[in-house]
Amino acid sequence: MPQIRTIVSALILAGSTTFASAWDALPSTAPAPANNPTTAAKVELGRILFHDPRLSSTGTVSCASCHNVMAGGEDSRPNSMGVHGQTGGRSAPTVWNAAFSKVQFWDGRAPTLEAQAAGPVTNPIEMGMKSWDDVVVRLKAIDGYRVAFKKAFPDEAISEDTATKAIASYERTLITPNSPYDKFAKGNKSALTAQEKRGLKKMAEIGCLSCHSGAAFNGNGEFREFPTIFNSYLEKQYQFSNDKGLFEVSNKKEDEHFFKIPTLRNIALTAPYFHNGTVKTLEKAVKVMATVQLGRKLSSAEVEDIVAFLNALTGEFPNQTLPMLPATPGKTFN
Amino acid sequence: MPQIRTIVSALILAGSTTFASAWDALPSTAPAPANNPTTAAKVELGRILFHDPRLSSTGTVSCASCHNVMAGGEDSRPNSMGVHGQTGGRSAPTVWNAAFSKVQFWDGRAPTLEAQAAGPVTNPIEMGMKSWDDVVVRLKAIDGYRVAFKKAFPDEAISEDTATKAIASYERTLITPNSPYDKFAKGNKSALTAQEKRGLKKMAEIGCLSCHSGAAFNGNGEFREFPTIFNSYLEKQYQFSNDKGLFEVSNKKEDEHFFKIPTLRNIALTAPYFHNGTVKTLEKAVKVMATVQLGRKLSSAEVEDIVAFLNALTGEFPNQTLPMLPATPGKTFN
Repeated sequence: MPQIRTIVSALILAGSTTFASAWDALPSTAPAPANNPTTAAKVELGRILFHDPRLSSTGTVSCASCHNVMAGGEDSRPNSMGVHGQTGGRSAPTVWNAAFSKVQFWDGRAPTLEAQAAGPVTNPIEMGMKSWDDVVVRLKAIDGYRVAFKKAFPDEAISEDTATKAIASYERTLITPNSPYDKFAKGNKSALTAQEKRGLKKMAEIGCLSCHSGAAFNGNGEFREFPTIFNSYLEKQYQFSNDKGLFEVSNKKEDEHFFKIPTLRNIALTAPYFHNGTVKTLEKAVKVMATVQLGRKLSSAEVEDIVAFLNALTGEFPNQTLPMLPATPGKTFN
Repeated sequence: MPQIRTIVSALILAGSTTFASAWDALPSTAPAPANNPTTAAKVELGRILFHDPRLSSTGTVSCASCHNVMAGGEDSRPNSMGVHGQTGGRSAPTVWNAAFSKVQFWDGRAPTLEAQAAGPVTNPIEMGMKSWDDVVVRLKAIDGYRVAFKKAFPDEAISEDTATKAIASYERTLITPNSPYDKFAKGNKSALTAQEKRGLKKMAEIGCLSCHSGAAFNGNGEFREFPTIFNSYLEKQYQFSNDKGLFEVSNKKEDEHFFKIPTLRNIALTAPYFHNGTVKTLEKAVKVMATVQLGRKLSSAEVEDIVAFLNALTGEFPNQTLPMLPATPGKTFN
């Protein structure tokens, strides 16, 4: 079922100084689905919900705990820590620019940000709520949420549907524009250094960009098999193929080891790397990808060039006001 | 060693409409110690450190995890949850207006905000760092922190001393002015309802304010014995005296069951109540205090009046910008 995208013609590089116009800068707004157009009231409600640890059974884990917007949009851990200190097998993907992916979760099992937002809340090792019904009971008990939901969804009730729509609307605002690469893509030829340009060129040459294509360098979030070259020592060292990706949920042979193509935007800020978070540094991650995915052995200089370019994909993180969580005067859930 | 403060004369109430001038509104700035004058650069650094989960061994717990400034300055839990889901025996006190207390922690063992800030970081069940030396190694490895510390402390190194000074400087800005009570104290007689005034009068009458005195309703953070009336059924039900307060650290007989007087500011937002967080609602907390501390049995109407007044101690929480945590490009601690 996963579609394999061919290398887009834009990626054919004529030379380090002439390819700027073929590249896409990150859009300043993200597309929203027809059934959930972005509004200011939804974004504001979503920002609050995203940061509210009362969406977890213990009152200690919010969406932001693992997708920390103050950092790179994730938690800098190999795997995240949910309620009662539990950990799972995958590394939290960044929420920044997640809006530019067609599918969500490492295995791409969620087709929308809305569907993704529903998952962790009731996952027993993540936020641990027994059901969304229980979440809705909590939210309905909080005056401030009743007001905020009414504003965001005047004709709808507080529900899993409206809560996840609000969270997704907020996430669609999490965009990091104006990286050195974006400035370069918009025509400022000196926005990238010579080394960064060499890195970009090398990435196109060896095939990185056949998957990591598009403005978010994620093939728009399509699926790819990973790793493609099994039985290398690196593959064994980092145990990539223990996790069968989409197969784990679909149970279909053809989905084995298929993962969503992750964005390379802000990749320098989201160590450790890969779905299982086993690779600690960006240098190592580049070497690993070249080896297990492309069958290439890169020189140290080539790795350094690529890492330099990847650092040029770090964008500007817009200032955000810390939301005040609506209070439950005089009582508590825990 | 704890000093017992006598009832301040300001608390003698002549009548519900005439006592406004005797009361203090919350100051708009907090005093700072001579060796740590508040500066904008320290506050900014402190805001970042306060929100950085990399100050914990797992990278999952920041000061803000248990002292959530987006909520009532604490975590709405009976006891806080530290690294690996561990919990302790005490409830996190609010960080809002903590600057107006002379001592910190429930047992008042820290004489300053600076000293308090040092504690949880290396507490094995809170943030779990092995030592402050380990914290300093982490901070020194982060470019952004090197710059921010240089700005805040031009002539000093990154250290436990400078880090805790910055955190304390930030905490001194966490003040919630303009509660209905403050408006009343400043002369707006209609800022409190008749019920709220009745509640305040009742509190003075029965003796609540003999401890909860001063602008922060905390006796400036002096010590008191709690509970004073042992062996009541409520005292047994909530197991207050299992925790011996300051005695637990001083081992001095005269410190047994002595605790810091907690602020009543924003008390409606900080359920559950008491040092062990066993009391879930404000109504119950008022009844308990009247019984185990003052030997009074209040009517339901009296409890309602007092709760109404306590709600009038909820102030305005100043908007804050979410800090961006300095990045560690391409690498991670966990």
